[in-house]
Amino acid sequence: MLDKAPNGKVTELLATLDQALSAGDIERALDLFQTDCYWRDLVTFTWNIKTMEGKDQVRGMLEARLADTKPAKWKIADGEDSSEADGLIESWIQFETAVARGFGHLRLKDGRIWTLLTTMVELKGFEEPKGFDRPMGAKHGADRNRKTWKEEREQEAAELGITKQPYCLIIGGGQGGIALAARLRQLSVPTLVIEKNERPGDSWRKRYKSLCLHDPVWYDHLPYLPFPANWPVFSPKDKIGDWLEMYTKVMELNYWSSTTCKTASYDEAAGEWTVVVERDGQEITLKPKQLVLATGMSAKPNMPTFEGMALFKGDQHHSSQHPGPDAYKGKKAVVIGSNNSAHDICAALWEAAGDVTMVQRSSTHIVKSDSLMEIGLGPLYSEQAVQSGMTTEKADLIFASLPYKILHEFQIPIYNAIRERDADFYKRLEAAGFMLDFGDDGSGLFMKYLRRGSGYYIDVGASELVANGSIKLKSGVDVQRLTENAVILTDGTELPADLVVYATGYGSMNGWAAELISKEVADKVGKCWGLGSNTRKDPGPWEGEQRNMWKPTQQPGLWFHGGNLHQSRHYSQFLSLQLKARMEGIPTPVYGLQQVHHLG
Amino acid sequence: MLDKAPNGKVTELLATLDQALSAGDIERALDLFQTDCYWRDLVTFTWNIKTMEGKDQVRGMLEARLADTKPAKWKIADGEDSSEADGLIESWIQFETAVARGFGHLRLKDGRIWTLLTTMVELKGFEEPKGFDRPMGAKHGADRNRKTWKEEREQEAAELGITKQPYCLIIGGGQGGIALAARLRQLSVPTLVIEKNERPGDSWRKRYKSLCLHDPVWYDHLPYLPFPANWPVFSPKDKIGDWLEMYTKVMELNYWSSTTCKTASYDEAAGEWTVVVERDGQEITLKPKQLVLATGMSAKPNMPTFEGMALFKGDQHHSSQHPGPDAYKGKKAVVIGSNNSAHDICAALWEAAGDVTMVQRSSTHIVKSDSLMEIGLGPLYSEQAVQSGMTTEKADLIFASLPYKILHEFQIPIYNAIRERDADFYKRLEAAGFMLDFGDDGSGLFMKYLRRGSGYYIDVGASELVANGSIKLKSGVDVQRLTENAVILTDGTELPADLVVYATGYGSMNGWAAELISKEVADKVGKCWGLGSNTRKDPGPWEGEQRNMWKPTQQPGLWFHGGNLHQSRHYSQFLSLQLKARMEGIPTPVYGLQQVHHLG
Repeated sequence: MLDKAPNGKVTELLATLDQALSAGDIERALDLFQTDCYWRDLVTFTWNIKTMEGKDQVRGMLEARLADTKPAKWKIADGEDSSEADGLIESWIQFETAVARGFGHLRLKDGRIWTLLTTMVELKGFEEPKGFDRPMGAKHGADRNRKTWKEEREQEAAELGITKQPYCLIIGGGQGGIALAARLRQLSVPTLVIEKNERPGDSWRKRYKSLCLHDPVWYDHLPYLPFPANWPVFSPKDKIGDWLEMYTKVMELNYWSSTTCKTASYDEAAGEWTVVVERDGQEITLKPKQLVLATGMSAKPNMPTFEGMALFKGDQHHSSQHPGPDAYKGKKAVVIGSNNSAHDICAALWEAAGDVTMVQRSSTHIVKSDSLMEIGLGPLYSEQAVQSGMTTEKADLIFASLPYKILHEFQIPIYNAIRERDADFYKRLEAAGFMLDFGDDGSGLFMKYLRRGSGYYIDVGASELVANGSIKLKSGVDVQRLTENAVILTDGTELPADLVVYATGYGSMNGWAAELISKEVADKVGKCWGLGSNTRKDPGPWEGEQRNMWKPTQQPGLWFHGGNLHQSRHYSQFLSLQLKARMEGIPTPVYGLQQVHHLG
Repeated sequence: MLDKAPNGKVTELLATLDQALSAGDIERALDLFQTDCYWRDLVTFTWNIKTMEGKDQVRGMLEARLADTKPAKWKIADGEDSSEADGLIESWIQFETAVARGFGHLRLKDGRIWTLLTTMVELKGFEEPKGFDRPMGAKHGADRNRKTWKEEREQEAAELGITKQPYCLIIGGGQGGIALAARLRQLSVPTLVIEKNERPGDSWRKRYKSLCLHDPVWYDHLPYLPFPANWPVFSPKDKIGDWLEMYTKVMELNYWSSTTCKTASYDEAAGEWTVVVERDGQEITLKPKQLVLATGMSAKPNMPTFEGMALFKGDQHHSSQHPGPDAYKGKKAVVIGSNNSAHDICAALWEAAGDVTMVQRSSTHIVKSDSLMEIGLGPLYSEQAVQSGMTTEKADLIFASLPYKILHEFQIPIYNAIRERDADFYKRLEAAGFMLDFGDDGSGLFMKYLRRGSGYYIDVGASELVANGSIKLKSGVDVQRLTENAVILTDGTELPADLVVYATGYGSMNGWAAELISKEVADKVGKCWGLGSNTRKDPGPWEGEQRNMWKPTQQPGLWFHGGNLHQSRHYSQFLSLQLKARMEGIPTPVYGLQQVHHLG
């Protein structure tokens, strides 16, 4: 028998919250919170993506935003029940503000709010045309001035960017740009995506040939059109390329491929960008109000500079340029780096009967794909989860409801379990000399991803080759210099090489801003990504949210979108709403605009 | 409080049925049936698509098929409850046979079976790889002989039809061929689709420009990948073309466009077809075991022959060749016919400021799109239905559970309601001289569609133009002859014309068999479509199922697939299973192979 008691407690609390907030009684509202509380708001109160940690920060936000936001109608979300377990009460909630409808999540500890997530679902009056409101398609009745759908699309394609300016220009047509553009189209925001490659999906197609997605399918759905039940767990790169290409078409995106951005500058007075692009060799000037860089977390290569690189006679390139092993059968390869790309590339080279050495300069977090899938993602993103009634929307929101500040505490037990489950595997890796870590605090892969976007490998087979010596390993060393035909390491080892691959990672996305806009603007917005956790490659101070991602930056009109497929999907919802609000002239006073502490 | 009593009754009946059938006690099983009963079997017992009407026919089928089928494990379907209303108990059921798993539907009247639907879900040991069984995609581990997905697809494309023969060849790459090919791929049946046009979806793109689907989106989903929630209710033709094109790609279909079939002949001894096709100008010989004609219900044009056609100096063509109104702005057009195409074309010509006359030779059933959507389809295929928990799968099965013999009885009240709702509309139409009908027995559109595939118009605006005289009408007449610049009607009227469009319908699909294979084979299989209802254009004797569709024909190895999007979707499941069973060597003794009573 379903226990309805938690419903009563939550309903009562929400009623009190509602009254207190409506009355402007902030202290009364704060009484409902734990001292150690977290309120994460996605747009509704803060017009930002922001976590308030502790009562003082909650107070500060409410003092600034309560009167304006006018929250109301707090209740347990329609069709949902609260649940109680291990002393915690959890509930889905809904509410409204003056201009929007919200949905969220609540955790109560000892009857008080421990975590609160408020997210914007839609802007009143600007709801997406879906379900009951889906467009008719056919224009019934007779109309002498009828334009068919095809004619409308052709007219749109002929005008947008030429005679009519897009409100929003997205630079980068990978999954991030595509997901955001799909949301913006549903919100009727005239949007143009520009992509340097020839076809949507090429950013995947052009990668090394053995590449498959590392995240399982349930994690990867795009908005509106999930992968079907027979889609593989790990999409091969060309298959995901095909999906992105068709998605771009059927979602009716305005997408210019073979188009590069040359320059962009902002006119503060006009509130408008001037962006010069080159499309199929022709220069076109665009004047969007909003500019989104969706150029990718893994886009701006970090290319090291070693003594002697100019001398080296063999092939050398960054991992992003690596074509795969076909030209290197039986050759000697040295791969600098020990994270995801390095492992994939080493394994592929070994499969091509290559003699391959991995040069590991610092420790790497390794987790087996199966273990990650089952223990790490399983409860939220798996076939089992789906069968148990979990939806992608709810999984995303549950994930979003875990405050970054304490997320690692939830993760540590997961990785302890993984460490134990795969103990033998890890032992053999270390016996081969591999330098392992589990993140600075044992919190594993996802925290490393959030903090620094690197430093791990999701093992799909390469680790076995390292453990058994098939892939040779030099660890705890760096490159000293290159010669004509070898790599000399800092311990004096000389590695003869026909090929050197620098699997040395990627730089912050604001590097694109520096290239496309100006160094000044790039410095103005500062480093992208990272939480300020004061762990390796994620210096403090504590930000509490991803730097610059999916929210206002210090440069008006400039936004960054991207991340993995889950983030591209989920956060495209909130970024699209922020852009739509601005287009409609809805006031969007940003609370707690992030400060810049690092330049890149 | 959910009434569980019906569950008990159904469970008891199914247990008795199970025992009786397992014991081979046919009379005991028949005791559970109403005298006036219907058992519709989709493959599981009959390896056919067949309705047994009345106890004698049920007895006959069981005597032939029970021992072989070995049905077992009859129960209320997992997760379902029976329901009781208006003296009827309804239930979803599941069962197994020796080789398959089945799902079905039951209606009890006074405690006995009134209607029983048994359908094949999957063949044991050949389940589709989806959900928990979806393919991994990435090949984990190391493999020196690794082929990437892309390489596998390229190899497949290079071999299939060239060095490796497809088991199944589908002629016709519209929605029917595409849906069937998708199912067959999931069942690992090597399949090739050939399509005469250049791109998947062209069969829609090349139609007259104002065309949109006449069936609403919830009715139209393809297998595996439903349209998203923001897809229009009525897809414009180019939009559905795009969807079909991407579906073909992401479902990994082997699809040869710009390919026509020249000849096909069957080798009975070898159990194999020899099919000569022309692909991009090159002749290729294919040797499939199974040949499916999916050339379309609306594919073989019925072109009339009138005296004087050779004299006429203006443009004249069948509606299937009509390009739309653009070349005919302000011209005089005469459209022969008064069904769907005629109305669409007349309306578009009028919108192009044309002077257009519709020549109605026989009565037409008109139903307004909104009324059809709400009253006709609403309970099963609508946003409301979806919101109430109806799934496409269940809607299809509920529809399939209504015996054709009495389907019209269910339909008559619907069309009475529509007649009443739109009384004024119909009055005005008749006042304009339009000859209306509601089917021979008042059972309306869907019966007309099932019986003859023609004779109706789903009104999306043209009827208003007829009612108000914008589209001129001559009814109850036929064409006598044409002159150089006019059409002379049988009542002597002379209609000056720059354009004559023969919206005169389409012939039976076995006309394609005559053209591609031989007249002998076409006559062997006989007329396609129709129920044998002895109504206009559907002569008896009573067939009880669609002639030749989705089931074995009198020509071994020859099959017909198609129908509207709902039928293409639903029946592709059963046709694909019949083909898979044959490929795997599972015995498929066909019960009650249809006899041929009409040649076309």
